[in-house]
Amino acid sequence: MADTYVLVHGAWHTGAELEPVAQHLRQAGHTVHCPTLAGNRPGDDRARIGLADAVASLVDFVEQHQLQRVRLVGHSYGGMVISGAAERLLPRLARLVYVNAFVPQPGECLNDLVPPHYRALFDGVAAANGNAVMLPFEIWREAFINDADLALAKTAYARLNPHPYRTFTEPSAIGQPMAALAVGKSYLNCVLDVALPASLPWHPRLSERLGLFRYLECAGSHEAWFTEPQSLAQAIEKAGRD
Amino acid sequence: MADTYVLVHGAWHTGAELEPVAQHLRQAGHTVHCPTLAGNRPGDDRARIGLADAVASLVDFVEQHQLQRVRLVGHSYGGMVISGAAERLLPRLARLVYVNAFVPQPGECLNDLVPPHYRALFDGVAAANGNAVMLPFEIWREAFINDADLALAKTAYARLNPHPYRTFTEPSAIGQPMAALAVGKSYLNCVLDVALPASLPWHPRLSERLGLFRYLECAGSHEAWFTEPQSLAQAIEKAGRD
Amino acid sequence: MADTYVLVHGAWHTGAELEPVAQHLRQAGHTVHCPTLAGNRPGDDRARIGLADAVASLVDFVEQHQLQRVRLVGHSYGGMVISGAAERLLPRLARLVYVNAFVPQPGECLNDLVPPHYRALFDGVAAANGNAVMLPFEIWREAFINDADLALAKTAYARLNPHPYRTFTEPSAIGQPMAALAVGKSYLNCVLDVALPASLPWHPRLSERLGLFRYLECAGSHEAWFTEPQSLAQAIEKAGRD
Repeated sequence: MADTYVLVHGAWHTGAELEPVAQHLRQAGHTVHCPTLAGNRPGDDRARIGLADAVASLVDFVEQHQLQRVRLVGHSYGGMVISGAAERLLPRLARLVYVNAFVPQPGECLNDLVPPHYRALFDGVAAANGNAVMLPFEIWREAFINDADLALAKTAYARLNPHPYRTFTEPSAIGQPMAALAVGKSYLNCVLDVALPASLPWHPRLSERLGLFRYLECAGSHEAWFTEPQSLAQAIEKAGRD
Repeated sequence: MADTYVLVHGAWHTGAELEPVAQHLRQAGHTVHCPTLAGNRPGDDRARIGLADAVASLVDFVEQHQLQRVRLVGHSYGGMVISGAAERLLPRLARLVYVNAFVPQPGECLNDLVPPHYRALFDGVAAANGNAVMLPFEIWREAFINDADLALAKTAYARLNPHPYRTFTEPSAIGQPMAALAVGKSYLNCVLDVALPASLPWHPRLSERLGLFRYLECAGSHEAWFTEPQSLAQAIEKAGRD
Repeated sequence: MADTYVLVHGAWHTGAELEPVAQHLRQAGHTVHCPTLAGNRPGDDRARIGLADAVASLVDFVEQHQLQRVRLVGHSYGGMVISGAAERLLPRLARLVYVNAFVPQPGECLNDLVPPHYRALFDGVAAANGNAVMLPFEIWREAFINDADLALAKTAYARLNPHPYRTFTEPSAIGQPMAALAVGKSYLNCVLDVALPASLPWHPRLSERLGLFRYLECAGSHEAWFTEPQSLAQAIEKAGRD
């Protein structure tokens, strides 16, 4: 069946980095959009844009394109954004798919869900860079794209953009736990993903906040978008169907 | 080597649903039986049949067929049944194989091993249905057969039968922990199985009750019998050999 | 790129058991050494040799061969040895790779990192065998080489040698946590490895002691060196590159 997918990127990314996965989904007959969120676009004011702005930009995108029966797929930080948008887009949604993505409870910000050493690192980098954060290459290479060779790790890193830190520190405005939202939910876990430490993992720590959810796995690291695009597309299709 | 397997189905199933896996094992040269336990047969009194009845029906089956050197393979609720039968069948057993199956301690019932929200759900359904329980389709589709497409999820669901609730609430009559039983044991874990939540998992929570055991994994969900029959048969063979 | 690997065996093994993996790495263009540590060589005094002796034998090997930019790969007990050697070999190291291997904190011995029932077992065997330990075949077959058939389990077992118990009881002499050592680190986890129980696992319990590390997985049990040599070689290459 031809479904409509909106792939929502993580921090430091734009929609363009999701295009290889989108292309595989399109070849399977689906319509796929990869918008870039407010805060990650060229010229965006990274000192001021927060989570609510990013959420609003996604809501606007879906409404302006008059999309219906949407599979909203959020990766990593994108989970904060699809969670925030879901209540407002509910009549347009077929399913939420979280790909190693954050699932907030009401009032939580992304920084509440990461280990203390990440918060300390981000605080320092943001303070020195006009409230925008970047990820040191060493962490990217070892903990985010651990399954790539060095050449791919470098070319992928070169595509990242400074991320507005207020999207990590501004609490989610969701009015109820995601488990209470009347829409299907899936959680897709890339088995080599150690961007969050295995002792504070994506699954089941965050996935179980969805209540009843469909669980699927995929090869690859947190950056399977670069390293395993075909497997990831197939897994997204299984996570998103019916 | 040609071995003898007895595949013991889970709740809501009969032996017939295990036939695709049995056929793969037969093609590998083994003798395979798929009995339907008391309580899941047409016409069984689902209001009255309990765990001891199901155990007795398995013991009777193995004895009446005069099986020797049996690999007793229990799936899910079937783990309660093979555990109960093992002591009585000990001279006839070569090995116990648990496939995402419950392993009771003495005095525990199946309901002691599932999350509270399942017990509450089952209590309500059984009270309204003459002490028989069914699984809502939504839970089946998302948490039991998460790796199937919708068509297979539906056709498989249509084959399920109402399950006698007393088999979930009656304590196991085993006289000693399964770890103490002098027979080889294996635990086979289907990696997409989230029928039990990952925070209250099959493995290692239940597997380690076996003491020394052989661990193996398989592709697929709790219902890999429908979705991954060939992989499951191969994994059962590795779990059951020597 | 042609890299230099030194594969460091686990308890009861010699370098010869790592040769099938070494051969795959050599076919990929690398230089690979598989030294046998002090304590596991023919004629070694197994009553007296301790962890410091084994560490010294590895340091000597690397220095005598004047190896540079070494990938030091430790399996199981070999993790205690590469950890102890790393500080002294630091200028010669490119990376440490732990394959289901122990990672000590300063002052810990291997026995501090295993479950109590293993310590009790080892104590008894060593007391009866001149301070050398062997692993009972039943544990080897079920928990160490669970993915092999019985024939391979037996031929592999026949190659093991009595292990000097002081290497398990002598504390590591490392002067700082491994996380503090300025060299790249990888942790490679064979997914069927239950030589340590899953409730006291290799990963993340021991891997996270490395601080920032690259995580990879591989098919196979604790003895993937015998059962999955090609997959293991490929995974070691991913763990060891750049």
